[in-house]
Amino acid sequence: MISSLSCDIMKNVKYCKCVRCGKEYAAVPDITTCECGGILDVIYDYEYIKTKLNRDVLAKRDEPTMWRYRELLPIEEDTAPAGLRVGMSPMYEAPNIAADLGIARLYIKDDGINPTSSLKDRASAMAVTKAIEAGIACSSTGNAASSLAGNAAKAGLKTYIFVPARAPKGKIAQLMMFGANLTAVDGSYEETFELSKAAIDKYGWYNRNAAINPYLSEGKKTVAHEICEQLGFEAPDFVAVSVGDGCTVAGVYKGLYDMYMVGLINKIPRIISVQAEGCCPINTAVMTGEEWQPQEENTYADSIAVGVPRNPDKAINAIKDSNGICVNVSDDEIREAQKYLAKNAGVFGEPAGVTATAGLMKLSREGKLDKGATIVSIVTGNGLKDIDSAIKSAGEPVHCKNDLAQFERLFFS
Amino acid sequence: MISSLSCDIMKNVKYCKCVRCGKEYAAVPDITTCECGGILDVIYDYEYIKTKLNRDVLAKRDEPTMWRYRELLPIEEDTAPAGLRVGMSPMYEAPNIAADLGIARLYIKDDGINPTSSLKDRASAMAVTKAIEAGIACSSTGNAASSLAGNAAKAGLKTYIFVPARAPKGKIAQLMMFGANLTAVDGSYEETFELSKAAIDKYGWYNRNAAINPYLSEGKKTVAHEICEQLGFEAPDFVAVSVGDGCTVAGVYKGLYDMYMVGLINKIPRIISVQAEGCCPINTAVMTGEEWQPQEENTYADSIAVGVPRNPDKAINAIKDSNGICVNVSDDEIREAQKYLAKNAGVFGEPAGVTATAGLMKLSREGKLDKGATIVSIVTGNGLKDIDSAIKSAGEPVHCKNDLAQFERLFFS
Repeated sequence: MISSLSCDIMKNVKYCKCVRCGKEYAAVPDITTCECGGILDVIYDYEYIKTKLNRDVLAKRDEPTMWRYRELLPIEEDTAPAGLRVGMSPMYEAPNIAADLGIARLYIKDDGINPTSSLKDRASAMAVTKAIEAGIACSSTGNAASSLAGNAAKAGLKTYIFVPARAPKGKIAQLMMFGANLTAVDGSYEETFELSKAAIDKYGWYNRNAAINPYLSEGKKTVAHEICEQLGFEAPDFVAVSVGDGCTVAGVYKGLYDMYMVGLINKIPRIISVQAEGCCPINTAVMTGEEWQPQEENTYADSIAVGVPRNPDKAINAIKDSNGICVNVSDDEIREAQKYLAKNAGVFGEPAGVTATAGLMKLSREGKLDKGATIVSIVTGNGLKDIDSAIKSAGEPVHCKNDLAQFERLFFS
Repeated sequence: MISSLSCDIMKNVKYCKCVRCGKEYAAVPDITTCECGGILDVIYDYEYIKTKLNRDVLAKRDEPTMWRYRELLPIEEDTAPAGLRVGMSPMYEAPNIAADLGIARLYIKDDGINPTSSLKDRASAMAVTKAIEAGIACSSTGNAASSLAGNAAKAGLKTYIFVPARAPKGKIAQLMMFGANLTAVDGSYEETFELSKAAIDKYGWYNRNAAINPYLSEGKKTVAHEICEQLGFEAPDFVAVSVGDGCTVAGVYKGLYDMYMVGLINKIPRIISVQAEGCCPINTAVMTGEEWQPQEENTYADSIAVGVPRNPDKAINAIKDSNGICVNVSDDEIREAQKYLAKNAGVFGEPAGVTATAGLMKLSREGKLDKGATIVSIVTGNGLKDIDSAIKSAGEPVHCKNDLAQFERLFFS
């Protein structure tokens, strides 16, 4: 059965497989979910990939982007990657924060340094690349939207975008500027998703929802490839990631799994899954061992305010398979982490972007972090995306006239 | 005289020289302006640098940051560069825009992809590196402030920052988050500068104002080094840059001059200096041939709203020495360029960030661009820094309920 499915043009990909029922599908560009409703995973031929990809090949490769790991991506050999420069974001060691947390080493992977200022660019670049293969327009829901709009603008693709009306102004500004056909949906993320799906079904647009389109987690996983390479292929003990829809954590795990399967790292790090207390259906499912249940979206961290996650299966598997840890944090803890990380690491993340670090701070306070641990915390988006929240957290500046005496009274008395 | 000035620890630097009276000074870390009030330029030993830096060396160098051009920078050989990953921003070819403008090739250098989302990070990284050499706290005025705050936070340096109270909220949010000691000055950029200088004089902080501190343009110039390397050392015909204080255009010219002097390019591109009509003292001086005169600050492009430029000499020399072109654009033309560039190149710049491109669009409309020209347009900052302006320009999204019929009426009827 597999041989009839295998994709002649993607030698590195075997097929897509439903994570729920196990049914296999040929990896065509516009595939979405399984007929059982389950989401698909892309299955690679790691033995083949091992013959093409190793440390020496990577060391000689002059490609400082996510496409550096092309052998591990579901694209055709002659497909030109979408145009914006996505990936190979900086990773900083933060010894001062590691000391505060009581661990051996902490690295901050700043994925806010991407063309549209979030990790979502990795999935959008993949979506645009696959949409060009399929030759159709693109649609997206939610917070990945501004990223799709930018990457599609560069590629000259038309986009239809749906966001919950609550989306922060920075993302709206990006969307309007990138010339997306933008609809602000008066309703929850769930309702936004439904309207998007109805329109996609009717008009046949390419679906950039990372939970429905199995290729998009494959874009996101490149952040984990980079982490491994940036650590000299020494796997960290833990990778902390903020979790909303579940696609990012699933992608991170998949990237680590890839690197392990092709022999580039010798263990798979444990995932630390961090959600907001006010919206934590995935962590709740892992912690209770029960089926996930919809929750309210009670957090100001808009990118992870997902009460009905669309990728629960892959996310829950990722956390469990890595022997992961779940931790939920309050909005106040997220605000505290945002200021702490900016002040101590020079990295200004959006609320959802710093939620992973908030989780580490909480685990540290509770004495649950191993002293010898090496941890990577992923910052998934830039703080400039949500300025109003940032100013609310950090406060307003002191005002002063051009008067040194007044200045001195304000600061030094 | 030169030998007694030459810096034993910086073999590549001869001395600093006043651009007005020609007086020479030893290149110590905390040098500022000449006793005549003129600003200093760092003079290199290009013959020495030629023996250390060439295409082969660069091709083998695994350093995708501004410190890649270390031989051309005024830092000691054993100085570790400041911590955030600054530079090697992407440069995109934009054939669709080149066709619109009627030129052969256009490249967009997106310097909004830097740790704090602007080109200013290049100067701030230099400032922090030199401040660490000098071992003191750092101060800054104006729009470079958020950049200094981020770079200093990473390095653990304390900062005192002064911004005009009109600074857009994105920059304020960054400053507060990075934990700067921030003063919003109720007054113009000029008054802000004066208060900053008074406080620096009193407290002996390291001065990060790029017009007073001669090293900072040396950081900014790395954008030009990268442009040359990214074009395979084929110099473009023109480099378009938005101009406010004058430090960026001076830095761009210096970087091109460096590359020419060490033999890495065979001509110096002509500078296209673009200012806002409502605040264009430098262009006015070049166009009239007279001394520059202070002007009002009548533009919404806050980063270049500088009525009293602090680096007029170097800026005016840069434009003249490159046989440059001056063009002034209205705020409406800047707004148009912002939307055009985002929609057609996938690059969302702040108003001052897209002003160079606005200048190209105007020159094109006036039939003043050469059909065979290759032009690089520098985008100096990310649009997320000034979201309110962006939304004002681009408009608000269409609102819709979760109702496909309503959606269709809105978009397809």
